[in-house]
Amino acid sequence: MASKPSISFIGLGAMGFGMATHLVKQGYSVTGFDVWQPTLDRFKEAGGLTAATPAEAVRDKDHCICMVATAQQAQEVLLEGIDPAAPALPKGATLLLCSTVPCAYVQSLAKQLADAGRGDIALIDAPVSGGAGRAADGTLSIMAGAPDAALEKGRFLLQELADEKKLYIVKGGIGAGSNMKMVHQVLAANQILSASEGIGFAARLGLDLNAASQATLKSKGWAWMLEHRVPRMLTAPEFKPVASALNIIMKDTSIITSEAMRYGFPTPMTSTAEQVYFSGLALGYGPDDDSGMIRMYTEGRDKVGPAKGQVESEEAKLNLVTALFKGIHLCSAAEALAFAQKCQLDLDQVYDVCINAAGSSTMLRNVGPELMKVYRGESPAADEGLGDLTQQLQAAVEEAQRLKMPLYLGSQALNLIRLTLQHNPNSAEKTPKAMVARTWGC
Amino acid sequence: MASKPSISFIGLGAMGFGMATHLVKQGYSVTGFDVWQPTLDRFKEAGGLTAATPAEAVRDKDHCICMVATAQQAQEVLLEGIDPAAPALPKGATLLLCSTVPCAYVQSLAKQLADAGRGDIALIDAPVSGGAGRAADGTLSIMAGAPDAALEKGRFLLQELADEKKLYIVKGGIGAGSNMKMVHQVLAANQILSASEGIGFAARLGLDLNAASQATLKSKGWAWMLEHRVPRMLTAPEFKPVASALNIIMKDTSIITSEAMRYGFPTPMTSTAEQVYFSGLALGYGPDDDSGMIRMYTEGRDKVGPAKGQVESEEAKLNLVTALFKGIHLCSAAEALAFAQKCQLDLDQVYDVCINAAGSSTMLRNVGPELMKVYRGESPAADEGLGDLTQQLQAAVEEAQRLKMPLYLGSQALNLIRLTLQHNPNSAEKTPKAMVARTWGC
Repeated sequence: MASKPSISFIGLGAMGFGMATHLVKQGYSVTGFDVWQPTLDRFKEAGGLTAATPAEAVRDKDHCICMVATAQQAQEVLLEGIDPAAPALPKGATLLLCSTVPCAYVQSLAKQLADAGRGDIALIDAPVSGGAGRAADGTLSIMAGAPDAALEKGRFLLQELADEKKLYIVKGGIGAGSNMKMVHQVLAANQILSASEGIGFAARLGLDLNAASQATLKSKGWAWMLEHRVPRMLTAPEFKPVASALNIIMKDTSIITSEAMRYGFPTPMTSTAEQVYFSGLALGYGPDDDSGMIRMYTEGRDKVGPAKGQVESEEAKLNLVTALFKGIHLCSAAEALAFAQKCQLDLDQVYDVCINAAGSSTMLRNVGPELMKVYRGESPAADEGLGDLTQQLQAAVEEAQRLKMPLYLGSQALNLIRLTLQHNPNSAEKTPKAMVARTWGC
Repeated sequence: MASKPSISFIGLGAMGFGMATHLVKQGYSVTGFDVWQPTLDRFKEAGGLTAATPAEAVRDKDHCICMVATAQQAQEVLLEGIDPAAPALPKGATLLLCSTVPCAYVQSLAKQLADAGRGDIALIDAPVSGGAGRAADGTLSIMAGAPDAALEKGRFLLQELADEKKLYIVKGGIGAGSNMKMVHQVLAANQILSASEGIGFAARLGLDLNAASQATLKSKGWAWMLEHRVPRMLTAPEFKPVASALNIIMKDTSIITSEAMRYGFPTPMTSTAEQVYFSGLALGYGPDDDSGMIRMYTEGRDKVGPAKGQVESEEAKLNLVTALFKGIHLCSAAEALAFAQKCQLDLDQVYDVCINAAGSSTMLRNVGPELMKVYRGESPAADEGLGDLTQQLQAAVEEAQRLKMPLYLGSQALNLIRLTLQHNPNSAEKTPKAMVARTWGC
């Protein structure tokens, strides 16, 4: 144990607390800082040391991990707040920024450090994915970008925190890790909402929700997010305790759309999700678990007036729910991969990261490689028809219309597929699903 | 007066009552039917005659006007309800269906009449636009489609009800009038919601709403709907009395999207509006004036948590609101004209109808002719830059993001313009606004 270096850890929220206590369990001496005193008390009980300021936490520790919630918070604890960490870091220290922040922010942080004469600090852009459980187990997905020398210094920490198969070194240096995380969050942002939209639709169809969710989880509509959000909707109708708050995915969603706007890049799926999330905020759902977004689809059904569906059998209704998931997940996969191409990420690595993390879906797994060929300018292989999926998705949108309920993502996906078919009436016959990629322009 | 024929009038709602009493004032003997007795009493006071059933109303009258709310109601009063009208119509009678119904319905009505051996009835597909005030003044816009012989018989009635410059005979026979109305309603559906979105945005920006609405009405963001909805938002905060209920525009919105789905045609703007309207229904806004949709943008601002904009001057804020309107109205114009082309309507006539009715906007008026060239396969003329509008619209979407409020239509318009620019990076330099037309495929 004596050979393990001392670590400072700034930001002991849901993710940070798990990561820091995991390091304690691995035998590291970890000094934590957080603005919330009860969290510091809990960290002490878990075997950690605590500090009263960021500067105090990092003093004489050669390795610092920062896991605050936003770029603004990172800027405060590292540089601009009271007793910030960066000036107090020992010479040549390693600094892992694990928060999800815009690429532009972490690049500006590197510049600010250099401008302040602290170019000696080995900054690593290392956002994570996987949720609080995997954080505490040391089996996160980590997407790390940095110069080789910095990566060398920080590698042992990345290895402690990540699953050995899910530690990704992202080419492109500082900012590339954040871009990888951002692209992954395109899938997360859409699929967290699709869970609510799909199960909300199932509820309005009158399906037994336990049976419906079991069936869709076995279908091609599967997504990691469904597996994790749907049980929370069914078992915690108050949407507490919070596993991951709406406010958290909102923050990431806005990073995606604001970075996309900076590039002039269209994100019709994520932008739709973002607007719905904003409406959720105004309904007071921000602090609740993000699975509470199901209320956008289920509440107020007594107020809509007469509304009657046409689909009768349970099997046909289940098919509509599955088609809704498939259509949304196809379009969110296309948007994520198109944006990855725009950010000049390695598409093979993007795919590998995403199918092994919270953004995974059966549609991404099955259609992703063909979408990537389109983005690379290669010819996609012939694939199974888009016609069937389009018809089924349309049937879902039509039934929701009869029930007078919104399907924000579903109707957006249908329109995007229709735009594809308008532009590619012929080529769509042979490589239809892959052609959805063209909607984003490439 | 003796020379004026007797008229039967079925459906004395907000529009029908005005139309029927206008005919009374013009010296016609009008026999009305409605399911709501107080309305019949009012009609009697206004000089009308009344009947207890549709059949009784039409007996021995050579001309019947039907102005019920939906295709389902038309089917009941004309054919399938208790004592329906059609079998009781005199031989060779004229039947004006003025309700807004899908093209498919009025075509099926013609077939049902023929199949029932009543091919002698001169059916005219004659939906109207203009609101209750113009209905009562006999200055509606009317879009009439029918065989020439039927039009000949019914022309005097169309002329009584319409402004002389706003009576449009739509080529294509039965169904063409309904298609023209449907295309017009693409503009109406989007611009009713844009009024709420834009003024809701102005409210969240902290602008004085009277001054802001005056300024935007003088800008290129002008639309007929703004002029009519915004005063209601500002003076009737309970959104009563109802000039036009949310439930009414919802009905038309669903006609558009379901007909579009039948054609496999994308309507990304109208579909977005429809989903937001569905959320409005679930909040209980259905019976309220449609201007009450502003609450989707203004309510709950105390629940969103910390949110601060960056734009400070009143002028800059006003520019954002204007840009939002311009972006939405450009895209709703493109969608309406693209759908008109799909429905094989005469685009010049569509333009003429729309700029003289409730769907009008400055963007349609200015950019419409160039959009139409694209849909016709002609080369649009060079036009002013799309770059400025895109930057301004993006600035609006970015500011709304900081304020954590949704701009459903604004962010959709921005993404559609971005898709255009992705697909046409070069041609967009010379004819940028017209190129937005290509997003819909043509």
